[in-house]
Amino acid sequence: MRTEEEADICAAFGKHLAQLRKKMGWSQEKLALESGIARSYIGDVERGLRNIALVNICRIADTLEIDPALLMGFRDATPPALGVGKN
Amino acid sequence: MRTEEEADICAAFGKHLAQLRKKMGWSQEKLALESGIARSYIGDVERGLRNIALVNICRIADTLEIDPALLMGFRDATPPALGVGKN
Repeated sequence: MRTEEEADICAAFGKHLAQLRKKMGWSQEKLALESGIARSYIGDVERGLRNIALVNICRIADTLEIDPALLMGFRDATPPALGVGKN
Repeated sequence: MRTEEEADICAAFGKHLAQLRKKMGWSQEKLALESGIARSYIGDVERGLRNIALVNICRIADTLEIDPALLMGFRDATPPALGVGKN
């Protein structure tokens, strides 16, 4: 069972991921294929239905070639520019 | 079963969390008490034994009053300064 706050966190993360993915011109299908994560799982994450764990956050970030910290920046009013190096 | 890469991610995150926590002068006990997360779980995360999920990453960041993105910045050679606002 999830609290409302937990649901809000998952929803905000999912929305942020979807925004970044679309901004980079990636489809869910491409992200799924290249990350090895099921498209249905990515869809669930983007809809805020999954409490995604560290390893999959990093796998998605690596696939999109962005820093995991950027993917986690879903509370920023002004997220860092795309293309921040990961090293 | 975890791959070596997954273990490396969990270990790097755990090390980064421990460094941030100590830099802020927090004990594991204080972090556990104030976050409502078991101290043994926090210890396991810091030792790289747990694939911590989004909601708990945010809970720890909120307790330490740092941005979740800072907590996820474990691949940065030069992590952002402490005290980055979360809003």
